[in-house]
Amino acid sequence: MSRDIASLYAPAAAGGPPLFFPSPERPIFFNFDQGNPDPATYPLDLLERLSHEVLEEVGGDALSYFDPDTGYEELVYGFRGLRTALADRLNVRDGRDFDADNLILTSGAVQALSLAARAFAGPGDAVFIEAVTFPYASSFLAGTGAEVVAVPVDADGLDVRALDDAIAAAAARGLRPKLVYTIATFQLPTGMSMPHARRERLLELADRHDLVVIEDNVYYDLRYDGESPPTLLSMDETGLVMQSDSFSKTVAPGLRLGWMVGHPDVIGGLAAVREDLGVSQFLARVMARYLEGGHHGPQVATLQDVYRAKRDAAVTALQEHCSEYLTFRVPEGSFFLWLELGDGVDWDRAAEAVQREGVFCRPGERFTDDGSGRQFLRLAFSLPSVDEITQGIAALGRALRDSST
Amino acid sequence: MSRDIASLYAPAAAGGPPLFFPSPERPIFFNFDQGNPDPATYPLDLLERLSHEVLEEVGGDALSYFDPDTGYEELVYGFRGLRTALADRLNVRDGRDFDADNLILTSGAVQALSLAARAFAGPGDAVFIEAVTFPYASSFLAGTGAEVVAVPVDADGLDVRALDDAIAAAAARGLRPKLVYTIATFQLPTGMSMPHARRERLLELADRHDLVVIEDNVYYDLRYDGESPPTLLSMDETGLVMQSDSFSKTVAPGLRLGWMVGHPDVIGGLAAVREDLGVSQFLARVMARYLEGGHHGPQVATLQDVYRAKRDAAVTALQEHCSEYLTFRVPEGSFFLWLELGDGVDWDRAAEAVQREGVFCRPGERFTDDGSGRQFLRLAFSLPSVDEITQGIAALGRALRDSST
Repeated sequence: MSRDIASLYAPAAAGGPPLFFPSPERPIFFNFDQGNPDPATYPLDLLERLSHEVLEEVGGDALSYFDPDTGYEELVYGFRGLRTALADRLNVRDGRDFDADNLILTSGAVQALSLAARAFAGPGDAVFIEAVTFPYASSFLAGTGAEVVAVPVDADGLDVRALDDAIAAAAARGLRPKLVYTIATFQLPTGMSMPHARRERLLELADRHDLVVIEDNVYYDLRYDGESPPTLLSMDETGLVMQSDSFSKTVAPGLRLGWMVGHPDVIGGLAAVREDLGVSQFLARVMARYLEGGHHGPQVATLQDVYRAKRDAAVTALQEHCSEYLTFRVPEGSFFLWLELGDGVDWDRAAEAVQREGVFCRPGERFTDDGSGRQFLRLAFSLPSVDEITQGIAALGRALRDSST
Repeated sequence: MSRDIASLYAPAAAGGPPLFFPSPERPIFFNFDQGNPDPATYPLDLLERLSHEVLEEVGGDALSYFDPDTGYEELVYGFRGLRTALADRLNVRDGRDFDADNLILTSGAVQALSLAARAFAGPGDAVFIEAVTFPYASSFLAGTGAEVVAVPVDADGLDVRALDDAIAAAAARGLRPKLVYTIATFQLPTGMSMPHARRERLLELADRHDLVVIEDNVYYDLRYDGESPPTLLSMDETGLVMQSDSFSKTVAPGLRLGWMVGHPDVIGGLAAVREDLGVSQFLARVMARYLEGGHHGPQVATLQDVYRAKRDAAVTALQEHCSEYLTFRVPEGSFFLWLELGDGVDWDRAAEAVQREGVFCRPGERFTDDGSGRQFLRLAFSLPSVDEITQGIAALGRALRDSST
């Protein structure tokens, strides 16, 4: 067994398996790390009842590759009944006229991003991302051989003027501007949203340059204050916009059910690069019944109350315990606060102290490709209780005080 | 919406979305097409009870991204409890000393094959497949940029002597022989199995050339007669062999739960190229309880009885109605018969007549890369009832008689 197996890896695997932070050895009392929903919000009883109904009423077909009445397309696009129910909901929310052919079901929104990257990006293409962003998306795009260009973000999300310049610069270098990935609402990690006018300018740019736009929309419905801007998908007149979403934050991540919505030709591109046999018929049927039963509206309303209280507790605690050492903007939704450490904080010292307090926030450089972001921390307030949030941020404050100059 | 979206596809998507055969418009009375298990074999009541138990006893953690006690590794490798239960079963069956670190859970065995291709094959590599084989595997390997070399199969499966020659020829052309994909037991579509001695020679070749071996094992337990040969994985002393398997044929495909087993460094390569967040914790926990409860042995025994009867019915009907027009070998297991049409059958005419009878078998050329295999049909006997098998094969016989010279 002494073979050097890693020497046989293809370039795609050359980095080896991912490392996991925080490591299991490090005791964590206050986990502000990942965007994990609070398990207390999962509609367990409802899902159990719907699971029971599906197995009782549908029988074996609920556990087959596809519904025999729909056929093979479900091996690629997933259960048509759930696609229809999702399209119906989008038609109400986003004012579209979609049907099942506008959707592909995926293993969470993450797989939808992977398929979109593979379908539309490749060598010779320039693809544009926000300078701090969801690391999986950035990594999937880089994996296609496309050149990934980071565009600045500000309090209004992606800087569209800077994007315009970046498109021109990429074209001047002989690259084909191909795709932009944006988290237009509750940008991750900053939590900021793009105003309506900037959305219009982004879509004008996409139209002018034939840029495919991936709108990552997983936090859109988790809004605690203010008015929702229209989604990019709702404003699109070109067919170039696709929107990724999932049940992971709003229902339960253990379902592994997400989707991409867009023009059928866009969805067809994702179908073309898919390398599995679709999602679980069983879970897709459960979630179709969940939507058809009108359960999603009340569920989202509950989540808004739960997470608003957590966000408010985090903001209050940060103002009380940490305001000397860091600044932040209050996001109107999502699971995160993006904390900028003051110049007086030496993060190398502070990291040690924070760890000693058993506090874990995700380091800012995890959201950039160039190692910048070291003076930032992302604090996820979604998983801990209000009490844990208050205590954990007090502990964070102690650690920052002890390591500040 | 008049944009030409397909012109924006990356090369990986250039073929467009898959076409589906048979098309839904074509009426099918006798469906011998896909390797669909019989839904009557799914242990519905048991799965319902175990689903209930998991949700009641585990609660919210059953629907989270990962078990908080195990942590982030489950985002990539999947629920540790199921990996442990699968390793325990393999240790009994294959005489290994595996644990959870030898496995990665995947969306069916198909995703395991995709990850293995991406992890180990790339431009400059030669990868070897059986000349008639599972088309997904062949397509995934080709998608990596590796050169895919088809090696003949005979009644003993992959021709290892021809593989030896193909390895030498590839090396002579400056390629790096890297990987062999084999369905050593119940080869698809031929149904034949590789005898012990040939397995030994295959492993010697792998050892000598540092060839990674993917052993596709999804039909291994579906044996109706004869003795099981040892799996390649059970014989491996190098760490180069990985084995793909799933619950799709033995429990239910709608679970979308498969896995790859092998040396941890092999599994780490697959983890490195994974682009989703693992499998459903919920379904993985259900299936861990299923294995821990000792349910798999009785389930497989039931399947053997059900499918043996179907195979025997198909063989009897073929002998009665089709023996003038085709020949075949009787496989000791799996879901398929591989029918070779006689010289007197003009398949272009016969295809029309078979279709008119409402019979659908999968055309042989779907299992080759070079369009050969046109004088073959793959007949899947797994889904239809014994009566449908008998009637459908009688209809096939009529169609062949009407179109023979």
